[in-house]
Amino acid sequence: MKATRKVQQILANYEGENPGVKGNLCRMLMEGRLKGTGKMIILPVDQGFEHGPARTYGPNAPAYDPHYHYQLAIDAGLNAFAAPLGLLEAGADTFAGQIPTILKVNSANSLMSSTSGKDQAVTASVDDALRLGCSAIGFTIYPGSDRQLDMFEEIVEMRHEAASVGLPTVIWSYPRGEAISKEGETAIDVAAYAAQIAALLGAHIIKIKLSTDHLEVPEAKKVFEEQQIDIASQTARVKECMRSSFNGRRIVVFSGGAKKGEESIYDDARAIRDGGGNGSIIGRNAFQREKSEAMAMFDKLVSIYKGSE
Amino acid sequence: MKATRKVQQILANYEGENPGVKGNLCRMLMEGRLKGTGKMIILPVDQGFEHGPARTYGPNAPAYDPHYHYQLAIDAGLNAFAAPLGLLEAGADTFAGQIPTILKVNSANSLMSSTSGKDQAVTASVDDALRLGCSAIGFTIYPGSDRQLDMFEEIVEMRHEAASVGLPTVIWSYPRGEAISKEGETAIDVAAYAAQIAALLGAHIIKIKLSTDHLEVPEAKKVFEEQQIDIASQTARVKECMRSSFNGRRIVVFSGGAKKGEESIYDDARAIRDGGGNGSIIGRNAFQREKSEAMAMFDKLVSIYKGSE
Amino acid sequence: MKATRKVQQILANYEGENPGVKGNLCRMLMEGRLKGTGKMIILPVDQGFEHGPARTYGPNAPAYDPHYHYQLAIDAGLNAFAAPLGLLEAGADTFAGQIPTILKVNSANSLMSSTSGKDQAVTASVDDALRLGCSAIGFTIYPGSDRQLDMFEEIVEMRHEAASVGLPTVIWSYPRGEAISKEGETAIDVAAYAAQIAALLGAHIIKIKLSTDHLEVPEAKKVFEEQQIDIASQTARVKECMRSSFNGRRIVVFSGGAKKGEESIYDDARAIRDGGGNGSIIGRNAFQREKSEAMAMFDKLVSIYKGSE
Amino acid sequence: MKATRKVQQILANYEGENPGVKGNLCRMLMEGRLKGTGKMIILPVDQGFEHGPARTYGPNAPAYDPHYHYQLAIDAGLNAFAAPLGLLEAGADTFAGQIPTILKVNSANSLMSSTSGKDQAVTASVDDALRLGCSAIGFTIYPGSDRQLDMFEEIVEMRHEAASVGLPTVIWSYPRGEAISKEGETAIDVAAYAAQIAALLGAHIIKIKLSTDHLEVPEAKKVFEEQQIDIASQTARVKECMRSSFNGRRIVVFSGGAKKGEESIYDDARAIRDGGGNGSIIGRNAFQREKSEAMAMFDKLVSIYKGSE
Amino acid sequence: MKATRKVQQILANYEGENPGVKGNLCRMLMEGRLKGTGKMIILPVDQGFEHGPARTYGPNAPAYDPHYHYQLAIDAGLNAFAAPLGLLEAGADTFAGQIPTILKVNSANSLMSSTSGKDQAVTASVDDALRLGCSAIGFTIYPGSDRQLDMFEEIVEMRHEAASVGLPTVIWSYPRGEAISKEGETAIDVAAYAAQIAALLGAHIIKIKLSTDHLEVPEAKKVFEEQQIDIASQTARVKECMRSSFNGRRIVVFSGGAKKGEESIYDDARAIRDGGGNGSIIGRNAFQREKSEAMAMFDKLVSIYKGSE
Repeated sequence: MKATRKVQQILANYEGENPGVKGNLCRMLMEGRLKGTGKMIILPVDQGFEHGPARTYGPNAPAYDPHYHYQLAIDAGLNAFAAPLGLLEAGADTFAGQIPTILKVNSANSLMSSTSGKDQAVTASVDDALRLGCSAIGFTIYPGSDRQLDMFEEIVEMRHEAASVGLPTVIWSYPRGEAISKEGETAIDVAAYAAQIAALLGAHIIKIKLSTDHLEVPEAKKVFEEQQIDIASQTARVKECMRSSFNGRRIVVFSGGAKKGEESIYDDARAIRDGGGNGSIIGRNAFQREKSEAMAMFDKLVSIYKGSE
Repeated sequence: MKATRKVQQILANYEGENPGVKGNLCRMLMEGRLKGTGKMIILPVDQGFEHGPARTYGPNAPAYDPHYHYQLAIDAGLNAFAAPLGLLEAGADTFAGQIPTILKVNSANSLMSSTSGKDQAVTASVDDALRLGCSAIGFTIYPGSDRQLDMFEEIVEMRHEAASVGLPTVIWSYPRGEAISKEGETAIDVAAYAAQIAALLGAHIIKIKLSTDHLEVPEAKKVFEEQQIDIASQTARVKECMRSSFNGRRIVVFSGGAKKGEESIYDDARAIRDGGGNGSIIGRNAFQREKSEAMAMFDKLVSIYKGSE
Repeated sequence: MKATRKVQQILANYEGENPGVKGNLCRMLMEGRLKGTGKMIILPVDQGFEHGPARTYGPNAPAYDPHYHYQLAIDAGLNAFAAPLGLLEAGADTFAGQIPTILKVNSANSLMSSTSGKDQAVTASVDDALRLGCSAIGFTIYPGSDRQLDMFEEIVEMRHEAASVGLPTVIWSYPRGEAISKEGETAIDVAAYAAQIAALLGAHIIKIKLSTDHLEVPEAKKVFEEQQIDIASQTARVKECMRSSFNGRRIVVFSGGAKKGEESIYDDARAIRDGGGNGSIIGRNAFQREKSEAMAMFDKLVSIYKGSE
Repeated sequence: MKATRKVQQILANYEGENPGVKGNLCRMLMEGRLKGTGKMIILPVDQGFEHGPARTYGPNAPAYDPHYHYQLAIDAGLNAFAAPLGLLEAGADTFAGQIPTILKVNSANSLMSSTSGKDQAVTASVDDALRLGCSAIGFTIYPGSDRQLDMFEEIVEMRHEAASVGLPTVIWSYPRGEAISKEGETAIDVAAYAAQIAALLGAHIIKIKLSTDHLEVPEAKKVFEEQQIDIASQTARVKECMRSSFNGRRIVVFSGGAKKGEESIYDDARAIRDGGGNGSIIGRNAFQREKSEAMAMFDKLVSIYKGSE
Repeated sequence: MKATRKVQQILANYEGENPGVKGNLCRMLMEGRLKGTGKMIILPVDQGFEHGPARTYGPNAPAYDPHYHYQLAIDAGLNAFAAPLGLLEAGADTFAGQIPTILKVNSANSLMSSTSGKDQAVTASVDDALRLGCSAIGFTIYPGSDRQLDMFEEIVEMRHEAASVGLPTVIWSYPRGEAISKEGETAIDVAAYAAQIAALLGAHIIKIKLSTDHLEVPEAKKVFEEQQIDIASQTARVKECMRSSFNGRRIVVFSGGAKKGEESIYDDARAIRDGGGNGSIIGRNAFQREKSEAMAMFDKLVSIYKGSE
């Protein structure tokens, strides 16, 4: 399928990358109802690992079934579906070729003691991603954790292997750990820094959280104030994060966090759109609602990203 | 031997998996007195490693002999026999091809200090499993331990290797360690979480413990209460665990723990059956009784799983 | 994109195959103007290798440029484009993700002496296919050649490697060589035999030539006559070839050979359609015409395969 | 050093190739007196292997010394110097970084019986090229030889390895062997075919011989005549060869063969220039003359390629 | 391009090193406006990793774009451009072959807790450097850190691998950590020691900071005083550092640190020049100014290093 000019412009930023990686990026950008717009909505379902099944699927019981998520992503016309190994395998044959998948290759969980450090286990491989026909791998890093350097080394190796076989890498860059306060985890200076680190590590797609106007690092705070960098609105903060992602040369999607009101989700999407972000990665806010509600929400989000609302 | 419709339905859930893995799952499901029912009884004998010989075999001296266990599993018409390397090797030739075996590839023991962390040693390989003609490998993880991430990385690699040569993986998912209270080890929220983790790690068969109605993790407790998830009876709790195993798309067997009264064992089996579980994995409660008693107990369990008692 | 029931039925025939391979088959079947119909038109451009540039591109000079072929395949809404390494590379970045590509991994040429045997050189690897983002590899075998056994061993190894990383294999099964007469190369018994060999070697897609009613092998001739196998029409012969491809469980596309009249091409397509074949692989008959003529021809072929003409 | 627009246009044709390969192509195109013009003159010194020392260096004794050739290439302001392993090693340290070098990785010789087949030995590796700081590897193929398929397989593997570490591949495509007459070795249809084969095998730079208006292959002859392809002049024939090199998307340099008169060399260069070729690869015609004469000749060639003569 | 006598003298110090490594050193020494002088100015842009994007690029917004830095290095006629993986990749194709690049293969960041130790993550490989066409790899060590021994072992392994494929290694030798006071980080005895350690680890180019006349280590202080080593001026201290770098047998470049006044930068350069140093590595002082100012500054620095100011 012929790629739109917009998509071709985005792909051109991945210069020097092989056609396999670009082809898979194209595949995700040309899928679903936002195809060709340069915008993306991704459904991530790794919360069963992170928070346990009841907290994750309990609010909407059909979501206990892996097929539910594949079907939701397809029916809602999303760009991609991301999940850990076992969950992807549980529907990989039924839905083969019907929706681009992202294999989340590392995972943490809630049954970790406060002294064990912020870290994740590598739970899948690039070989798994090829075997399952995935379009990308996904990996979480924790800038701010005392384990971050090890995590960086892990993803750099996996990214190298993945790219060599034509698979792009999505980095979930989530600041947390010993060096950062709770409030700092979503501070704008830290969010922009997290985006920059992911970009420098070679992420093809960067996933960060929407941020607040808090400034965590004193030296950064000083620069934000001196340079009068606008961080008053969410739109302004998205802009700063895009600028920190090689001046927009990398695809950045923003996550919404725990379930919240719909209007708030739509406002987020408008800010992402107006700030030049590439889209949303929405998990619990989608699959913890009844399917009809989730479908309506995605429908509205598509309209927003298309610019009509 | 033609697989029953029930067994074919179960195998169909392992979609995308190769015929080698499915063939071995079929072999276990079509073995013994429960063949074709979709139910399983497995005899595991790794307690000599975990607790030492006297605590394990002392109550029934013939059980010191590895052949005793092979013969018991065969005579009782069980689906499979699981044990560590040395024990399997000690009867592997005599009983070659007579009972599906599961090579337990990691093991802990009781001679570990309280500060050494909850972990196990990898004590056998996929090559060993092939050489010994096993039908699966078995691996224990400890969600809640500070060593859990390493354990996850180990099993993910071994599972990948095992599946690539047609061997399914059974994960013993036993919560314990720094992040969990003693009572929490069998809490229903934790048990269901343990099942979910095993499923996400790619287990073909999940082994967990029967649980209590305790709720360990505050955030989970809140959801169980809000969503009014029924955990009053063992049957209800088995249902919740099956739901947490990809909505029943994975085979789950439940272990009984230390030796206890027969009626209690039968009640457990009825709860497993009525909650949609796939069966029992019974070690000490079998081989610590005299063989005739054990045979009678298995006879009764078979009846229960067939639905007639 | 949701696959049609027809495509899902076709994919179900590739049982035991991993989701990666099925996903790529789906990708080709769900591409272009025939998407979802189970029919395919593929543009192959390896004749520059086989016959030299002037004989190949001379009749339509723009075809000297590799981009011409990518663009033609995209503009005509075909299912896939097949070519050797260098030609694919020359447009792989510009057209990344826009049309499924098949990397032809072996090639012969016309500068071979009559005594050198019918063989091809392996000119690309599975790694190349991944790096270039291809959807499949393609390989030619010559049943009937004294080198055929070596060719079979080559493709079986490459197919194994390709499938393990999610890439299907297309086998060009072209009878020729010491064991076969010129007329026998297109004999129906030989064509059906060539299809059967490709299927047995594990081809995911089989490419054979349309055949004549000649019967080459005396023992085969006897059976065709005894069993009164209908080979009178091209439709009947296509049916026999499909039957020989695991009773239609494998995708089979038919090639047309040197440039010829349009009506003849359309009659071929109708026979392929009516005989249950999966489509056409058309090279010289496409790119040796002016682009507007080629586009009109593909338009007509699409209509024929959709059943309307 | 900033690359000229002309050089950037050439590099853009190597789409999908990594920056290492492009960087080395750029390095050669931006070296010497023709830097930035898109034209190249390369000094190849592998004739000592091919014809023996006396036939090679005898006419100009200083040429027995490897340093002579390095110095000549540097002093004349050429783009690159190509030679086999030992010869490059003999000056690699002295001239490190001063002239791009091409490691000729296979070689034939004149001490081969007429029955041993047209083939070459692989006499150096990609590792050698990196260790010696080379800018490319060079490899000879003999289309027309009964050994050609093996040669194709060798170069395809080496090219893959070389490109993965940032080294371009120059293919010397020299038709000869059982399938071709002596006159056919330089026939225009065969020369264009040789260029096409090199391009399809993935050559980054193609080296072929200037051709005659002879047409060797009957089927090709027919097309040349039908399509009225102009082959009357050397300029026209260079054009046909460029067209056969992916419509000019690949760099093509032409060799001059045995020593001949200067005017003839200059006429060749003018034809190469006017036909759109990228330059000359001149060995014996350079180093078999006295250095002052060779310098004067190169000076003249540079002027021709710059378009002023 | 013929190397100057000065450059050849410098290369001769790398005796026993292969021509690939020397060729790349030559390439950097023969690039830009200082080519052939033995002096170098390098633009390093890894501060986005070290300090975050706002602190790094905020003062000069165009610097958020990776292309800005490539272009600045080229336009200013510098010798090389150094950056981490992601940043180099973001312009590697556009600027392929136009400026020697140094791949910074390890990186720290500011989101590290005070208890996590002074260390860096390895974020790129030698393979990456080859693929991207780099002329060297760069690696930071922290003499004085509790992690320094691990860092030494990492770089020694990478240096070995890099040199074997013709890539020189630049060591950023930055004293810091548990064993050193804040003032000691730039003490002359420590700076000279840092240079010596880098040289002993096999650095081809050593990068250290300009130092103060503070003496940190008591035993060293004693010797400096006894031997009356001149450390009064920056020029004298540069001399001491060069002496400590194998008596000037290794290339040493000095970094300037945070943005400061221009005159101070020029004085530094004069001291480097007069003390026998090889040049400056200037990041923030360049790209945090407007481009026109940065260009003027580089222009002045070139003049200073050429000896005319």
